[in-house]
Amino acid sequence: MIDPLAGLTLSRLRERTSVKWRLYPADVLPVFVAEMDAELAPPVARALSAAVERGDTGYPHPGRLPEAFAAFAERRYGWRVDPGAPVLVADVMTGLSAALEQVSGPGDAVVISTPVYPPFYRALRDLGRRIVSSPLDYDKSRGFRLDLDRLEADFAAGASAYLLCNPHNPAGLAFSEAELLAVAALAERYGVRVVADEIHAPLTMPGVPHVPFASLDTEASAVSFTAVSASKAWNLAGLKAALLVPGPGADVSGLDPELPDHAGLFGVLGSVAAFEEGGEWLDGLRESLLRNGALVARLLGERLPEVGFVAPAATYLSFLDFRDLGLGADPAEVLLERGRVALVPGPHFGVEGEGFARLNLATSPEVLAEAVDRIVKAVS
Amino acid sequence: MIDPLAGLTLSRLRERTSVKWRLYPADVLPVFVAEMDAELAPPVARALSAAVERGDTGYPHPGRLPEAFAAFAERRYGWRVDPGAPVLVADVMTGLSAALEQVSGPGDAVVISTPVYPPFYRALRDLGRRIVSSPLDYDKSRGFRLDLDRLEADFAAGASAYLLCNPHNPAGLAFSEAELLAVAALAERYGVRVVADEIHAPLTMPGVPHVPFASLDTEASAVSFTAVSASKAWNLAGLKAALLVPGPGADVSGLDPELPDHAGLFGVLGSVAAFEEGGEWLDGLRESLLRNGALVARLLGERLPEVGFVAPAATYLSFLDFRDLGLGADPAEVLLERGRVALVPGPHFGVEGEGFARLNLATSPEVLAEAVDRIVKAVS
Ligand SMILES: Cc1ncc(COP(=O)(O)O)c(C=O)c1O
Ligand SMILES: Cc1ncc(COP(=O)(O)O)c(C=O)c1O
Repeated sequence: MIDPLAGLTLSRLRERTSVKWRLYPADVLPVFVAEMDAELAPPVARALSAAVERGDTGYPHPGRLPEAFAAFAERRYGWRVDPGAPVLVADVMTGLSAALEQVSGPGDAVVISTPVYPPFYRALRDLGRRIVSSPLDYDKSRGFRLDLDRLEADFAAGASAYLLCNPHNPAGLAFSEAELLAVAALAERYGVRVVADEIHAPLTMPGVPHVPFASLDTEASAVSFTAVSASKAWNLAGLKAALLVPGPGADVSGLDPELPDHAGLFGVLGSVAAFEEGGEWLDGLRESLLRNGALVARLLGERLPEVGFVAPAATYLSFLDFRDLGLGADPAEVLLERGRVALVPGPHFGVEGEGFARLNLATSPEVLAEAVDRIVKAVS
Repeated sequence: MIDPLAGLTLSRLRERTSVKWRLYPADVLPVFVAEMDAELAPPVARALSAAVERGDTGYPHPGRLPEAFAAFAERRYGWRVDPGAPVLVADVMTGLSAALEQVSGPGDAVVISTPVYPPFYRALRDLGRRIVSSPLDYDKSRGFRLDLDRLEADFAAGASAYLLCNPHNPAGLAFSEAELLAVAALAERYGVRVVADEIHAPLTMPGVPHVPFASLDTEASAVSFTAVSASKAWNLAGLKAALLVPGPGADVSGLDPELPDHAGLFGVLGSVAAFEEGGEWLDGLRESLLRNGALVARLLGERLPEVGFVAPAATYLSFLDFRDLGLGADPAEVLLERGRVALVPGPHFGVEGEGFARLNLATSPEVLAEAVDRIVKAVS
């Protein structure tokens, strides 16, 4: 069995030049930004090495990426994507902003399910949209859950769009078909357009299905936009490629025709290899992540039971609830100062994140154990 | 002596997946988009291979890039850049748009020296700026030249900014210190802010200096913005990295703090290697380009003397004047249809480009000879 999260030592990881390994000084253990401490999947590494060999570093062409994604989506999720539909974009945030510009206007209300990925706030602010925070339901022992009543109230108050994060960062949720059908019904009832961020879609835990919003047989799905990428599941964020997938009924006439120019060719080539040949590696990764979630649950349960931790059903992210420890709104600051371990501050995800911090599980069990150790020491 | 443009056969080039090799069918010879038919410079290839080896594909960090560029600029141009100043951006067009947003407002007039790189028009339109075309002076045997009187008239009519392309695409000009000092004086007199696109700066012909606008000792330089990149000179456009260099007196408070997030990590790593260790390779390339310019001048002079061709003083681009052949506004269309050779249509560069087509010289002498052959056959 492939175990992509085993084997990389800290000294090898510290040779990396990405944000994860360069933002903090060397005495800080970084478990913050959503990058993985994994070797590249062998097919991806081969594709990139071959491109270096060819000197294939010119302007990006989408090449086989739409077809490769469509085949992957059909195999994995039973979602049929017309390979002519996806638009190459540099990254998911660029794709989401482009979609939101299509489905809403300046000043319009856009609903997000909070706490949620911090750049959602900035993207909506940059577009001049009104941000409507619709909090997830929360319980310390069970974790987060979609609150459909609250969502309905927020849609009913007059919103143009819902920026759906599925799987959800940082809640670690993969929404069920029933939940998504309910969202679609509400969207239709209140005239809300759905823009889905499914960047974490490949990363459900073994046995947990991912249901693409656009795969539902609803009118809301037909006019939705979905942003997808190989960048989370195969750790390619620095290579800059994602796809914006318009539903068959979505108007795309306003999309900037130069969106693909800002994507990276190595991102395209790495993503094609990932979607076409990276399935076995991905399944190994999902097993590793499941074990890591269980490890943290056990370690925290033994050593720091006051912290709320629920292993994610999808994504490699978990949102730790420190509120019973009295560390204030931003426990990550305390952990960084006293424990030299870097998590993402909960308040970045919205007011619902006060007292929380986000931990990245995509590393070796050794590094995770060290992270828990530093957390425990910092708060003791 | 290194000759980066020798040795790549057409069959090896056709394995590439970039726009140059994928936009047209295989019977078309592509000499259009500004990519080079060169192997990677060995230090760049080593840096990229090492990154693949490390699995170093996470979020981009500027790393040593500002320092590497500052050292290169000082060695090559005598331009002293504060390494704390450059902002990492995905590409030069993104940097230029960000700078234009800083120095001008919606509806403001922005001057460009036409014919010029087509995306300038679109960028200014997207920003809602008024485009003021200030034509270069032109003579068929001598080529293009800056028309300072015309530029003064266009500044005097009320413009907020001048988007300076230096070296100039497609005119192949490297503006002299005297010309740039005159531009600076006009900019100061009429309150025009200069935004300089110096993406082709490393690519002057041997013996021709590049003078960065920002390196002049003028007030206009101090408040200028300059976009630079290793992407043209080392053929890294698909890896997505460039720097926006604000002058020491430029207000940068309005720049989007998320600009660096959209850059590519491999672009950063390749550019660092290029600026730090790619000098010898670059000088070999400049010699090859000089020879290629002379080759095309000789071949066209012998076989198609009606075409105006002036070998560029900088860039690997040349703007061929077909007007005496009566091929209409867009000779590239005729060349593509009848000769199966793809150049960039002159009208894309503005009305001054009617009757012209842009030829890319950055390929082997064999491919260039074949391109000339196809051009000759197409018009005979
Ligand atoms: C939910 C979500 N959306 C978007 C992104 C960012 O994607 P990109 O870097 O492609 O813009 C992330 C990154 O972690 C994420 O978790
Ligand atoms: C003058 C000029 N500016 C900008 C660019 C585009 O640069 P980038 O791909 O970094 O946006 C080019 C590409 O050929 C160019 O010639």
